[in-house]
Amino acid sequence: MCSSLWLGTLLQSRWRNKKCHWPSLIAAWLRSSPDCLGEGLSLLPTPHTFTPSSFLRPGQLSNVDLNEDISELETELPRPYPNEIPHNEKLLSLKYESLDYDNSENQLFLEEERRINHAAFRTVEIKRWVICAMIGILTGLVACFIDIVVENLAGLKYRVVKDNIDKFTEKGGLSFSLLLWATLNAGVVMVGSVIVAFIEPVAAGSGIPQIKCYLNGVKIPHVVRLKTLVIKVCGVILSVVGGLAVGKEGPMIHSGAVIAAGISQGRSTSLKRDFKIFEYFRRDTEKRDFVSAGAAAGVSAAFGAPVGGVLFSLEEGASFWNQFLTWRIFFASMISTFTLNSVLSVYHGNAWDLSSPGLINFGRFDSEKMGYTIQEIPIFIFMGVVGGILGALFNALNYWLTMFRIRYIHRPCLQVIEAMLVAAVTAAVGFVMIYCSRDCQPIQGSSVAYPLQLFCADGEYNSMATAFFNTPEKSVVNLFHDPPGSYNPMTLGMFTLMYFFLACWTYGLTVSAGVFIPSLLIGAAWGRLFGISLSYLTKGSIWADPGKYALMGAAAQLGGIVRMTLSLTVIMMEATGNVTYGFPIMLVLMTAKIVGDYFVEGLYDMHIQLQSVPFLHWEAPVTSHSLTAREVMSTPVTCLRRIERVGTVVDILSDTSSNHNGFPVVESNPNTTQVGLGLSAYPMLLLKDFRDAYPRFPPIQSIHVSQDERECMIDLSEFMNPSPYTVPQEASLPRVFKLFRALGLRHLVVVNNHNEVVGMVTRKDLARYRLGKEGLEELSLAQT
Amino acid sequence: MCSSLWLGTLLQSRWRNKKCHWPSLIAAWLRSSPDCLGEGLSLLPTPHTFTPSSFLRPGQLSNVDLNEDISELETELPRPYPNEIPHNEKLLSLKYESLDYDNSENQLFLEEERRINHAAFRTVEIKRWVICAMIGILTGLVACFIDIVVENLAGLKYRVVKDNIDKFTEKGGLSFSLLLWATLNAGVVMVGSVIVAFIEPVAAGSGIPQIKCYLNGVKIPHVVRLKTLVIKVCGVILSVVGGLAVGKEGPMIHSGAVIAAGISQGRSTSLKRDFKIFEYFRRDTEKRDFVSAGAAAGVSAAFGAPVGGVLFSLEEGASFWNQFLTWRIFFASMISTFTLNSVLSVYHGNAWDLSSPGLINFGRFDSEKMGYTIQEIPIFIFMGVVGGILGALFNALNYWLTMFRIRYIHRPCLQVIEAMLVAAVTAAVGFVMIYCSRDCQPIQGSSVAYPLQLFCADGEYNSMATAFFNTPEKSVVNLFHDPPGSYNPMTLGMFTLMYFFLACWTYGLTVSAGVFIPSLLIGAAWGRLFGISLSYLTKGSIWADPGKYALMGAAAQLGGIVRMTLSLTVIMMEATGNVTYGFPIMLVLMTAKIVGDYFVEGLYDMHIQLQSVPFLHWEAPVTSHSLTAREVMSTPVTCLRRIERVGTVVDILSDTSSNHNGFPVVESNPNTTQVGLGLSAYPMLLLKDFRDAYPRFPPIQSIHVSQDERECMIDLSEFMNPSPYTVPQEASLPRVFKLFRALGLRHLVVVNNHNEVVGMVTRKDLARYRLGKEGLEELSLAQT
Repeated sequence: MCSSLWLGTLLQSRWRNKKCHWPSLIAAWLRSSPDCLGEGLSLLPTPHTFTPSSFLRPGQLSNVDLNEDISELETELPRPYPNEIPHNEKLLSLKYESLDYDNSENQLFLEEERRINHAAFRTVEIKRWVICAMIGILTGLVACFIDIVVENLAGLKYRVVKDNIDKFTEKGGLSFSLLLWATLNAGVVMVGSVIVAFIEPVAAGSGIPQIKCYLNGVKIPHVVRLKTLVIKVCGVILSVVGGLAVGKEGPMIHSGAVIAAGISQGRSTSLKRDFKIFEYFRRDTEKRDFVSAGAAAGVSAAFGAPVGGVLFSLEEGASFWNQFLTWRIFFASMISTFTLNSVLSVYHGNAWDLSSPGLINFGRFDSEKMGYTIQEIPIFIFMGVVGGILGALFNALNYWLTMFRIRYIHRPCLQVIEAMLVAAVTAAVGFVMIYCSRDCQPIQGSSVAYPLQLFCADGEYNSMATAFFNTPEKSVVNLFHDPPGSYNPMTLGMFTLMYFFLACWTYGLTVSAGVFIPSLLIGAAWGRLFGISLSYLTKGSIWADPGKYALMGAAAQLGGIVRMTLSLTVIMMEATGNVTYGFPIMLVLMTAKIVGDYFVEGLYDMHIQLQSVPFLHWEAPVTSHSLTAREVMSTPVTCLRRIERVGTVVDILSDTSSNHNGFPVVESNPNTTQVGLGLSAYPMLLLKDFRDAYPRFPPIQSIHVSQDERECMIDLSEFMNPSPYTVPQEASLPRVFKLFRALGLRHLVVVNNHNEVVGMVTRKDLARYRLGKEGLEELSLAQT
Repeated sequence: MCSSLWLGTLLQSRWRNKKCHWPSLIAAWLRSSPDCLGEGLSLLPTPHTFTPSSFLRPGQLSNVDLNEDISELETELPRPYPNEIPHNEKLLSLKYESLDYDNSENQLFLEEERRINHAAFRTVEIKRWVICAMIGILTGLVACFIDIVVENLAGLKYRVVKDNIDKFTEKGGLSFSLLLWATLNAGVVMVGSVIVAFIEPVAAGSGIPQIKCYLNGVKIPHVVRLKTLVIKVCGVILSVVGGLAVGKEGPMIHSGAVIAAGISQGRSTSLKRDFKIFEYFRRDTEKRDFVSAGAAAGVSAAFGAPVGGVLFSLEEGASFWNQFLTWRIFFASMISTFTLNSVLSVYHGNAWDLSSPGLINFGRFDSEKMGYTIQEIPIFIFMGVVGGILGALFNALNYWLTMFRIRYIHRPCLQVIEAMLVAAVTAAVGFVMIYCSRDCQPIQGSSVAYPLQLFCADGEYNSMATAFFNTPEKSVVNLFHDPPGSYNPMTLGMFTLMYFFLACWTYGLTVSAGVFIPSLLIGAAWGRLFGISLSYLTKGSIWADPGKYALMGAAAQLGGIVRMTLSLTVIMMEATGNVTYGFPIMLVLMTAKIVGDYFVEGLYDMHIQLQSVPFLHWEAPVTSHSLTAREVMSTPVTCLRRIERVGTVVDILSDTSSNHNGFPVVESNPNTTQVGLGLSAYPMLLLKDFRDAYPRFPPIQSIHVSQDERECMIDLSEFMNPSPYTVPQEASLPRVFKLFRALGLRHLVVVNNHNEVVGMVTRKDLARYRLGKEGLEELSLAQT
């Protein structure tokens, strides 16, 4: 316990007397110090007298080269995914750092803010809007690029395979076709997997769990780098072209986020270019706001759902609802879908008709043609139950698979081989199913892009082949809108079954790919099957349009897997373009979520937990009122004195066994029993120097401090936040949680009745408590 | 300054020793005590020794009858609107109390929460969903009721007038028709105005400013009472039937909010019925959540815009975004629009087609028929500028009018007379314009409900008459969808001009009525006029469909008047049922807001400011970093000791000159220099007793305290919150504001470096600072 203190937050700083220049030291705050030094403070010698002559000179940057250190650091940073997933879901990893959504009000920050007048704030505001517009445009363009490239490459592949099949159908030897198809797929997927596994593993998967974590306030290394974006875009193109059971929509969210993070900082560290613009935004608070906008723009481009995008960002990221921020996010979303719409309309030759608001469009569900009646609502709810159960099954299977992967497939080359295997198997399964299928449909009047005749009569095509020869997006729309009778129930059943397992196997591979579209496709298939059965049972009543049930099935399956609620309803509503469908979709999603939650968590949450990320949910567990801050906090905590010896500070900061990066700064002057806290979330000794380095500060170990410098005294009062948030130790966990979550804090100081620092609450202390099946449970902490 | 303290929050309480029963006294916390007693503490005698024998006995309810007191109180409460609007907008009124969104964690609260186990929390959660469903259903039914009654009564009135006009057109003497029309209107409006002016003045207007205030955390007396709902519903029916330039949509938001407040509390004080259910929800936090849901359900029913409703509630009310809450709000909205849709579909005879999602439906804007092209976007932006200017003009005129009303028309009978005058003038203007108009249109193929032939040839009808003979909702839809050529430019111009001034005069009358529809109508009229001119100028190009411009004009005008952003865009998007129109609508609304804000505030904000409500915006003024908590706080603050004499407490509480209801509870024990704060937002000495009385607690003055009782000692430590939020006095205003706003606080204690209470920050202290044209300005405080 640190007695009689003076609290402040140490974030951005400079010298009191300008006599002792010390940026390199404070830079070290980043790498942090021991959490539990115990009575470390008492080991320190009594404060030296204040001797200005022993201070460093300003402007003397010691022997630290920022750029060099950064590049060094970059390669040293741990690769978080998927190599190092711990083997136990009841763990919280200590390796993740937090973002700080609270501005540290130290003297430098306040001086800067006070210098800015009203007009300058308006300029900043205008810049924010410009950035959002740019985010929207670029995200839209990236989506267009992906769409066009995928369409052309996939078309090319299908034409080659189709010609080959057509050739060999007549003269026998279709196994050559199978071989060709499997090889083509495996080859393409290999390239996609290699770039992900060897260059940027964080680009694997849909990126939604990673973005959820980032918006929640957890720093995931590399997640918003330009390199990640490039790998992601190439990876997703190759995965889709490779015929895997994946979609290109999920990755758009990640792409939008990276674009936003890049633009808002006005530079790219990967390209080593600094445009010297938008420097005001180089802090966690601002960056996170823009990343929200980017994620929203991504959703908007993927589904043509600008409102859904905004709600997605808010649902995943917002801690404090801000009208202006939301409005900017909406602006970015709108621009994004508009850009995509314009470019794709021009590309498809019918300029200005603006008929492609998203990468996937569900087509119009007109109330007149495909309305639903109130009696159908119980049926929809039943479909929600089915979706919930199937979704839980999907997640459970994927959980086991992921555990298997963690244990046995953690080397990149193995991962690539697995991806190739899946691609080949997908092709083989597709081929066998097409081969075995005897479901022929008349070619006339259908809108199939690559009709495959195979063994069908002339003028007919193999219906199973459409499902595998289209991109999954097209298949979904076909299932929604093809007239009744287009599909054989047997075909649909087999397809559902196969695709379910393929999609489940595919999610978690080391490729960039989303799970939205496969889920929709599985759901649409069994939904349509359900509709056909219903129509059969009711002797073809007019209201049993199978397309409607395909939609509900798609919603149920997707809801059962990802368990998103509000945003998913709005996304589905916007994608169908029909407000009256909102009500049944909401009911279906709600049912699927409730049923699914009964068995197992949502897919994204599951993967977040498997990575042991200290993720903060919306509220503290309901039964946690019996816990107080005293029981929750980390203790003892290392305190610094307001006037401290440089050597002491270096020693504390260099100790790498720390769990957090904040240090209370205390003062024990009997006359002024000041209370305060010094934190060093990120150190900005010289404001400009360190804003340039944001967010990759050099570590303390890279800085040489001479013995003379170690004997210098430093006054920390200008570096720290003099008014940090504190809670009394009697406060209950929900109260602490609310304060922490609502303000997006990184550190929260716990004080006792004497106003002495007794502990510190950080993200992991709060994320540790979880509501399990048997009530409150506590996760253990691990350094993995 | 209160030295060496012990802080806690005094909200719900009971006796320490069960020896002294004291509910009546603590009840008195409600009526609060002097803010600035200065060194009041030092005037108190030294604490008595703790003598249990002198404590009151438990169960002894003194001589206080809660019900009696409540009814007494009700009539004594000031009527806030519109009688007492202060004459200066640079004032903040002290008469408004705040809601407290922060649970006071005193011992009783914690004990209750800890008693509740996991299963019980699930029951509470289910109850919340049930309540939201009920809110949705009831709001939908109320909307149906209003719609059906208005349709029938208005139809009846128009038939009578039309028959009369038809009769007198031939034989002359149309002045009788005018008289009949004016008298009918004035009579109906008189009834509507009388019930509002004499029974429940808070039901006047659209209710949106009041709900905005409520959701912001300001208690507006009577605003969520059942009586208000009844008057509101009857009033709005009568206003619309009386032919005023008003809509029935805005009041739906208020109605939904009242329904929500009523249902969630499980009782009605107006009806003196307590159903003894939902008692858990009888606190500000929960009630406000439900009121948000009710407001959203109201929007949803009014415009068929469930997502827009959710966003409206969030935009106006949310301080802390909570996923579960939002999801419940969305559920209520969906149920509301679905109920309305089902009932109206049945009523209109085409059951199950679900074609009436809202009170107003803009009709379908198909991309194929009425698409827009990218070249039109600058034109739309120009329309936004026009809308902004016209909106600002509307608001400025209405501001002067409101000031005039405040000065000269504050007696209810004058208000009724003014309303009647406006009704008569509206009828007369309509009549004259119909009379003078020579704009005849063929009756065939048009969808006019009451075609008035007047002086037109047989088979034709007077086009101006449609505008006045339809409900404004119908007129708006006609302007959107009538084929080109249906309107004469002159007619439209005259109509716009007249309706603009009539609507402006009408808003602020003592009748229940909304400004949404009149704004839309004005905008649609000039928008269509604009479209016609454009079509004329471009020689009838295919893309110049006037309906499209009517829509944009409507958006521009509404945006220019109310200045809502995100929610309005989504409402308009959902009402048009076309996602691609979202982008231009957003641009138009944004332009209108920017241009309008340059001149004058939005209409709702203007009226809120005219009532001097301490309204908290989203962020502290950007240039306020130079202010600290020390400069902002109220000081000196009255402190209580932890063990205090009953008489002292009574005296402090009885002093009515107070500005706030919270009192730090301090303890000066040299051994345990505990810091804490005792607040009494609302007093719940005996939890159940006082939860029953929520939110109308009896005043301290109504409680008899004997001299013996006054000498009792009371230990306040169980009544207070032992872990209140505090800020150091050095914290900047934005920091204090963020904490206060994000957590929805009512009181925030300011402490110095010695951890002594130096002041208290309440809502008015923060609302006082505003960004004016010349930078930061400070409003003065007044008791009015």
